[in-house]
Amino acid sequence: MRDAAENNASNGIFGPDRSVEIEKWLVRKQMALLGNPPITLVLWNGSKIASIGGKSVGTVSIRDRTTFFKLFVHPELYFGEAYSDGTLEVEGDLVALLETIARIRSTASENGLLNNNLMKIISRPKLNSLVGSRDNIHHHYDIGNEFYRLWLDEKMQYTCAYFSSPSATLEEAQIAKMEHVCKKLRLSPGDTVAEAGCGWGSLALHMARHYGVRVKAYNISHEQVLYARERAKSEGLDDRVEYIEDDYRNLSGRFDAFVSVGMLEHVGPDNYQELGKVIQRSLKEEGRGLIHSIGRNRAKPINPWIERHIFPGAYMPTLREMMELFESSGFSILDVENLRLHYARTLGCWLERFERAHEQIGNMFDQKFIRSWRLYLAGSAAAFTSGDLQLFQVVFTNPTNNDLPWSRAHLYTNNSR
Amino acid sequence: MRDAAENNASNGIFGPDRSVEIEKWLVRKQMALLGNPPITLVLWNGSKIASIGGKSVGTVSIRDRTTFFKLFVHPELYFGEAYSDGTLEVEGDLVALLETIARIRSTASENGLLNNNLMKIISRPKLNSLVGSRDNIHHHYDIGNEFYRLWLDEKMQYTCAYFSSPSATLEEAQIAKMEHVCKKLRLSPGDTVAEAGCGWGSLALHMARHYGVRVKAYNISHEQVLYARERAKSEGLDDRVEYIEDDYRNLSGRFDAFVSVGMLEHVGPDNYQELGKVIQRSLKEEGRGLIHSIGRNRAKPINPWIERHIFPGAYMPTLREMMELFESSGFSILDVENLRLHYARTLGCWLERFERAHEQIGNMFDQKFIRSWRLYLAGSAAAFTSGDLQLFQVVFTNPTNNDLPWSRAHLYTNNSR
Repeated sequence: MRDAAENNASNGIFGPDRSVEIEKWLVRKQMALLGNPPITLVLWNGSKIASIGGKSVGTVSIRDRTTFFKLFVHPELYFGEAYSDGTLEVEGDLVALLETIARIRSTASENGLLNNNLMKIISRPKLNSLVGSRDNIHHHYDIGNEFYRLWLDEKMQYTCAYFSSPSATLEEAQIAKMEHVCKKLRLSPGDTVAEAGCGWGSLALHMARHYGVRVKAYNISHEQVLYARERAKSEGLDDRVEYIEDDYRNLSGRFDAFVSVGMLEHVGPDNYQELGKVIQRSLKEEGRGLIHSIGRNRAKPINPWIERHIFPGAYMPTLREMMELFESSGFSILDVENLRLHYARTLGCWLERFERAHEQIGNMFDQKFIRSWRLYLAGSAAAFTSGDLQLFQVVFTNPTNNDLPWSRAHLYTNNSR
Repeated sequence: MRDAAENNASNGIFGPDRSVEIEKWLVRKQMALLGNPPITLVLWNGSKIASIGGKSVGTVSIRDRTTFFKLFVHPELYFGEAYSDGTLEVEGDLVALLETIARIRSTASENGLLNNNLMKIISRPKLNSLVGSRDNIHHHYDIGNEFYRLWLDEKMQYTCAYFSSPSATLEEAQIAKMEHVCKKLRLSPGDTVAEAGCGWGSLALHMARHYGVRVKAYNISHEQVLYARERAKSEGLDDRVEYIEDDYRNLSGRFDAFVSVGMLEHVGPDNYQELGKVIQRSLKEEGRGLIHSIGRNRAKPINPWIERHIFPGAYMPTLREMMELFESSGFSILDVENLRLHYARTLGCWLERFERAHEQIGNMFDQKFIRSWRLYLAGSAAAFTSGDLQLFQVVFTNPTNNDLPWSRAHLYTNNSR
């Protein structure tokens, strides 16, 4: 009520009332501490705090005093909360502005300005037990295939694409990603493949069609499995690709290859050893494995707003943390590739399509949902561009497997596909 | 004295006296525990213990009872001691036999049959302080350039070569290794490069000649630095390559690239953070780094005989342990490649040349030295073939550097060189 009254009391951009002088002082202090980022702030009464130096990548308007103080207390959480409910508005390039903020926070965090320990407690991810995982995955992936179809590529891949040529379209880059994964796994006709976390099933179909392998693909998202089965049937591949609605921990059989694209983020570090054991018992002596996952340079909890509203239970590990999975099972790492900028571009494509489908999405969801998803996509793009997030593809094998290629040149030869 | 008397008392291979029955029983028990490896044992009295199943990769003869019991107490140490002083002899393919033993030990260690904790205490590496490092490096690298010249490639590279084609010679593969490293570092004319642990200087010369860069190369081996300076002068590159006889911790200046090939093994995990800081302060904003090091799948101390006689202070880290260096400084890992089988082949080439130069080496050193080095080269080849050791090339950069290639295809394009 007070906030609304104050909003009404504000008059013009250059005529702030006295009541916000303390807030302005706070903002200047905070901005100086953060190295004076090129961002313009506008308070609820219209009072404007320009960036030092004049240049500005965008304007952040804070609509009320409550939001202002919440942002001071826990910006990682309340920036998202405020943006999605509209009490915070951004003018200018959202990705560029978020990238600026991400770079600042990264520097500030290194300088010890931000209390990461407190954040770790606040943002501890939800446990990924067998039941917890189902809830967490349902939250994000079962909100409707129709929604995802509006802004993903035509094969519905919701993971980092591979832009082997800078001019590639998203469609081409998603196919290139599947090819890159298949080549890294050195698939041969007749091979059996286990896939953990198969999304809408496109990689399994690609492997079966183009590499002549048999795939057992696991996923706990009901909507995705239904969609994938339908597709396998309509493409005549349901004799070679089996989609199983079950947890990766229940994987059975022995395979020539194990692959998991974009699932590790949902596994949680406490379960890496167990995942390692699952892969170990599933992989033949000369088997190859690939894990594709978002990661970090330094251990840090996931953004608490993302954890609360977008990806409950998610955690992006460092390579060191990922090694818990491989070393505990004695696997040998053959190849690690960081595709960070590929994910920035992928997210840029998704955001562009998301904005183009604005009207259709508006018929399905409310404005708060749309604003949340815009922020999530833009914020993720910014996180990859600024170096806050990484994308690791890790290829591994059994320690005694000597059936290894002498070079990785085979990944870069063109084939007819 | 007692052993010698017993040796004299032995008569014929199939006529053992009663006195070794307990030893034979012990061997059978131990062999069964290790899964009955295909190795034939001959005791000091001629008594032969054939491998179960009949097939044998080689024969190990133990010359006296003292050696026999030492081998039971601490095989990792006393196999080497006994082989080098001739109280243990091997007939058959030494590498194949050692590989068999390595595989057995690896399995036994996983099954908890071997007391690794005890071994860790026994074989704690010597500390690599500034002074300690000099002593440790002097021990191995200053035993004479003439000796190394007899069995290394013509450019004197004492690190894993890169056999990009299976038919490559050692000379070709060592040049290919330097090319591979340079391409990974994306060197451009005019770049400045810091090299830590430069050996006899060949990589620095290669970079300067073929990539037009300026190199500051550090090494604490006096003999190697003298040799490298001489070479730079005779090749007319001493205006572009500076060899500095100093510890990597004293590295000064800022560079476009940092490279270290085969030094991390001598750094020791306690110093990884410090090395990370040295690199951090030395690398420009868009700088690239490469560390090439022997590693392991699982943490384990170095073989105690190797530590005592060949590489004092050495330690082969897992990728996870290496991450201590990168994560503590916030570096972003771009690429990891495992060249394990390349090192097995490199060592095979060295061993072959070593044996060919047997006579010349015999004029320089005594038999004990020759046997030690034969065992070290053969044992290392076996360790890479069996999967006990790995070779990691890690490419990294500053976390905010967005000047990154879209793919690694440039590593696999042929150039005129």
